[in-house]
Amino acid sequence: MKLTDLRVAVLGLGLMGSFHTELLTSRIRGVQVTVVNDFVQAKAEEVAARIGARVVADPIEAIKDPEVDAVLLATPGNTHAEQVNACLDAGKPVLCEKPLTTDVDSAYAIVAKEAALGKQLIQVGFMRRFDAEYAALRELIVDGGLGNPLMVHCTHRNPAVPPHFNSEFMIRDSVVHEVDVARFLLGEEIASVQVIKGVATSTAPEGTNDPMLVIFEMTSGRIVTDEIYVRTGVAYEVRTEVVGESGSALIGLDQNLQVKSTDGRWGGRITPGFVERFGQAYAVELQRWVDAAGQGTIDGPGAWDGYAAVAVCEAGVQALTVDGKVEVQLQTRPEAAR
Amino acid sequence: MKLTDLRVAVLGLGLMGSFHTELLTSRIRGVQVTVVNDFVQAKAEEVAARIGARVVADPIEAIKDPEVDAVLLATPGNTHAEQVNACLDAGKPVLCEKPLTTDVDSAYAIVAKEAALGKQLIQVGFMRRFDAEYAALRELIVDGGLGNPLMVHCTHRNPAVPPHFNSEFMIRDSVVHEVDVARFLLGEEIASVQVIKGVATSTAPEGTNDPMLVIFEMTSGRIVTDEIYVRTGVAYEVRTEVVGESGSALIGLDQNLQVKSTDGRWGGRITPGFVERFGQAYAVELQRWVDAAGQGTIDGPGAWDGYAAVAVCEAGVQALTVDGKVEVQLQTRPEAAR
Amino acid sequence: MKLTDLRVAVLGLGLMGSFHTELLTSRIRGVQVTVVNDFVQAKAEEVAARIGARVVADPIEAIKDPEVDAVLLATPGNTHAEQVNACLDAGKPVLCEKPLTTDVDSAYAIVAKEAALGKQLIQVGFMRRFDAEYAALRELIVDGGLGNPLMVHCTHRNPAVPPHFNSEFMIRDSVVHEVDVARFLLGEEIASVQVIKGVATSTAPEGTNDPMLVIFEMTSGRIVTDEIYVRTGVAYEVRTEVVGESGSALIGLDQNLQVKSTDGRWGGRITPGFVERFGQAYAVELQRWVDAAGQGTIDGPGAWDGYAAVAVCEAGVQALTVDGKVEVQLQTRPEAAR
Amino acid sequence: MKLTDLRVAVLGLGLMGSFHTELLTSRIRGVQVTVVNDFVQAKAEEVAARIGARVVADPIEAIKDPEVDAVLLATPGNTHAEQVNACLDAGKPVLCEKPLTTDVDSAYAIVAKEAALGKQLIQVGFMRRFDAEYAALRELIVDGGLGNPLMVHCTHRNPAVPPHFNSEFMIRDSVVHEVDVARFLLGEEIASVQVIKGVATSTAPEGTNDPMLVIFEMTSGRIVTDEIYVRTGVAYEVRTEVVGESGSALIGLDQNLQVKSTDGRWGGRITPGFVERFGQAYAVELQRWVDAAGQGTIDGPGAWDGYAAVAVCEAGVQALTVDGKVEVQLQTRPEAAR
Repeated sequence: MKLTDLRVAVLGLGLMGSFHTELLTSRIRGVQVTVVNDFVQAKAEEVAARIGARVVADPIEAIKDPEVDAVLLATPGNTHAEQVNACLDAGKPVLCEKPLTTDVDSAYAIVAKEAALGKQLIQVGFMRRFDAEYAALRELIVDGGLGNPLMVHCTHRNPAVPPHFNSEFMIRDSVVHEVDVARFLLGEEIASVQVIKGVATSTAPEGTNDPMLVIFEMTSGRIVTDEIYVRTGVAYEVRTEVVGESGSALIGLDQNLQVKSTDGRWGGRITPGFVERFGQAYAVELQRWVDAAGQGTIDGPGAWDGYAAVAVCEAGVQALTVDGKVEVQLQTRPEAAR
Repeated sequence: MKLTDLRVAVLGLGLMGSFHTELLTSRIRGVQVTVVNDFVQAKAEEVAARIGARVVADPIEAIKDPEVDAVLLATPGNTHAEQVNACLDAGKPVLCEKPLTTDVDSAYAIVAKEAALGKQLIQVGFMRRFDAEYAALRELIVDGGLGNPLMVHCTHRNPAVPPHFNSEFMIRDSVVHEVDVARFLLGEEIASVQVIKGVATSTAPEGTNDPMLVIFEMTSGRIVTDEIYVRTGVAYEVRTEVVGESGSALIGLDQNLQVKSTDGRWGGRITPGFVERFGQAYAVELQRWVDAAGQGTIDGPGAWDGYAAVAVCEAGVQALTVDGKVEVQLQTRPEAAR
Repeated sequence: MKLTDLRVAVLGLGLMGSFHTELLTSRIRGVQVTVVNDFVQAKAEEVAARIGARVVADPIEAIKDPEVDAVLLATPGNTHAEQVNACLDAGKPVLCEKPLTTDVDSAYAIVAKEAALGKQLIQVGFMRRFDAEYAALRELIVDGGLGNPLMVHCTHRNPAVPPHFNSEFMIRDSVVHEVDVARFLLGEEIASVQVIKGVATSTAPEGTNDPMLVIFEMTSGRIVTDEIYVRTGVAYEVRTEVVGESGSALIGLDQNLQVKSTDGRWGGRITPGFVERFGQAYAVELQRWVDAAGQGTIDGPGAWDGYAAVAVCEAGVQALTVDGKVEVQLQTRPEAAR
Repeated sequence: MKLTDLRVAVLGLGLMGSFHTELLTSRIRGVQVTVVNDFVQAKAEEVAARIGARVVADPIEAIKDPEVDAVLLATPGNTHAEQVNACLDAGKPVLCEKPLTTDVDSAYAIVAKEAALGKQLIQVGFMRRFDAEYAALRELIVDGGLGNPLMVHCTHRNPAVPPHFNSEFMIRDSVVHEVDVARFLLGEEIASVQVIKGVATSTAPEGTNDPMLVIFEMTSGRIVTDEIYVRTGVAYEVRTEVVGESGSALIGLDQNLQVKSTDGRWGGRITPGFVERFGQAYAVELQRWVDAAGQGTIDGPGAWDGYAAVAVCEAGVQALTVDGKVEVQLQTRPEAAR
């Protein structure tokens, strides 16, 4: 372990906790998961063995552990208040999955307690702010590309959810994302909420209003609509359109950010260069090569592929001065070169 | 440094070498750049100081260095033959930026030498194979989704290039990508090359054919076309269409992979779930949180954002049973909570 | 005039009346505009002279005119009740631009009066039903392609409107289209209306709520939302999305009908054949040729274009058996052949 | 029949002749088909009876017929030379389906003969020039929106064709369209043709090269590529991309004209107004209304639809001043109002 690596305790190893643990141990640089904790002890032990961490059975003890610099909280929401408080008491940064807590008073108490500390230790897991499309949309708004934003339309659709997703759960677990999106994009608070229920899909449990239309009125009076529909049977579809005084922009059509502007055009930005287009491919290439090189081998195109390219380009250069085609001559491919 | 970290020497600190070094030291896990080397000594020293590496002035010595497990080669192409040979002699894995070497004979000699070793140490930097769209396109072909592929159409456009990109350089440096794309997608070698020159753009230097149409005939007889145009003034545009017996597929329209199939539909796959849609956002969130937590702070939505979300959801849940809107009541935001 | 041609009186020669008159006299077969009428007598006379019609100064007399078989009503809405009644009294078919009348009672009286006649003479100008995209969307719904429709989202945006488009006018003149779209697509009546006003664009006159969000609840309980925004400064944008139990479909993105379905794909129907793709082009070709041939000339590609095509195809056929290119030999183009 | 109607003879009542006859008798204004002719006499008689035309058994006699002002030629190509000459002799305008003739010499003889007449009587059926997308693409080029056009890429795909579509027929019947497209878009002649054959689809008859790549070199040296593939099993797909010095534009993706320009954006023009968006719908509405009104009835939304809209708008206007929803009250729908 590097001396400078951040030592993290992951609390809660359900869907999100496992997902975060996988990322922390395979893709994120500068971090080590030293401690894991779960209500189900066996689950914690299985994960700990696999990634080389210790199990600490009590969540508060895990937070206080001397080999823990920071905490990732993926436990059930109703344990968050106590655990986040423990992080503040220990002076340790915490990434807390939504919700911060399950009631308004305990949430505000945490805000006040952290404010008294004078530094921010609590980050909440609203990860859409880190999505390239949402970031581009916000940048467009902030840069004035749409003029004053007037309305926002959100769509949030899941193909399927477990039966416990009733109307209340849909608000607390799904609409909560659009709560943050509205606040993030518009930079202001939500002043009121209205829920309009229509006809429910036949696969919704009795009494569950799926889909619903939720309407936020922001403090400035702007209107935000959110269609929440979690049993579409289709796919995961998250869409946001911002309608401004001088144009509108739409993300989530599986076609990247699209803008309609006062020059009468619709469309998007063309990828300006290779970093924007292939930057992620380079990162994947390097991570896979580093992993393979550690085993003394490769995980990608090899010497034969390099040789073949040289031979073809050589023929291509000759073809520049020939009226017709130039044959490519390749040596026999050695067995060992795959 | 972790004991298991791969120790890498980066040779060549130009555009690509610097780009790789940045990724290796900020985003790739399990690796340390221990040695750097560049023809310009001062450049190497500046980078070494910033990332905590050593400069080794001679590239061959850098390859042999006992604190180097593997080599990333981003030096000029005409030095590759000697340097890759040195890597083979040292038994060290090497990621070699294209071209493998600058002539066919030296390239094949390397293939033969590696084959004699009996294991693959050389990986060539054809990074498009790691791009999600190219990978999806290949998977579609391999799975038979297009039937037998019959033709491939490639487009490779740059907004601008330096003056030394003459016709020959365009073949060796740009078309070389489509050489690998054609081989990667179709799984066979290129048998001949034809170049068709048309009218050049007025910004092309005298004697440079920009754009050109390059045509590959594969060993099976399949035709691959490549429009190479590197002074469009527009943007970076890399497009590939595969036309098969039972459908066609197109990537690079800034709209993700699109397929036309025998059911008479055009379109793409809807994102199936949150991992596919927001997986990258989670990785960015975690990396930024790890970096900030190491400084004892956060880099994302904070406790106030979490509190506001709890308050709005509470109002939303009340709104489920109210015919009209429910006001959201927020406490005063503490100064310290931004 | 053909004996079988329908003789039509056009009443009202403002924007819509002029537009209809132009279509009736240049593109619609089987009709003659025999009578025109406008509040501004000089306007009527100018049009009549141009198209070879008679002016009848009194609208009711125009309806009763013996050389009038049917009436196109493009007069101001507050004259519709009397004029439509006159059409019913005369037993003449009428195409009445929206609104049918300007108050509910007179509108229902007309419904009752027509019902007593036992045949339908009144058609209302909701022309979106004749748009290919709306027709395709309705067909998709009726065929069950989306399962039970649950919600509909409409967007109606104009680049600019005259100052008299206040909130009330926006409802009566713009939202009225979505009223018919909702009824047409869902096949049921609207049970209630709610208007949600947000922040108005700065170019809206004092007191005008532009944009607004209008929400219809259908008799079945289905929810329809309509964003109406008539001063976008951008363009004309009319969009409708239907969200159903087994898929959703979207028109109005300038990209034709797009469907997201339970097979996890988004996309549209590929044009199946040349009639669907070029049928409209054939009609334009023929109409322009008929018009030109009446003048003894052509209005499209001529004999030289035909000759050049024959020469090129001849070379193309030779090229089938040649390894390289075949020159095209053209005679001198005669001056008279353009 | 109107005195001013153009009297047309349709020669050849196969696929294209029947299609044109249908348009001429149902959608095109100012024309009457007075004479029909077909090699199969019974076919001609059946059509003549249906549309109220006369059969003239000999094609040359049909052309000379005193009740014929102009000729639409949809006969087999090998009869065109004689028939077009007869039209010129009779001084009658002719719309001649491609090809003008089947050999270069007879085609040029017709050009010369018409040129000697001093006026253009011959129009050739290259109907893509009348397609809105091709027209917009040409306008964009002519207006300089792409700078100097450098390359053009065409794709021409059919789902299926009869067995007689061999390689030569594909050139003469399909590629001929792109011959005219290239000439129309670039405004110059084709200087040479090259055909590149690859791997044929397994459903192509023995010896037929399907797909093929055809390359035109224009007199200016510009390159045009055309992939011709007529047994895709997918759909009808006709695509053209023009690559210019300052941008590129693409039609035929079922998404309207899309441009990539030097401002780094991709996209299209938003429909500027209702005429562009719904002009075709208005024409359909009027034609259907005219046809129905001739029968004393309607073919579209009726009085009840007008009444319902008035009632809903009335509720909508009330809703402007109400905080919540306003019920819509509808009278009973009379049985006779559908």
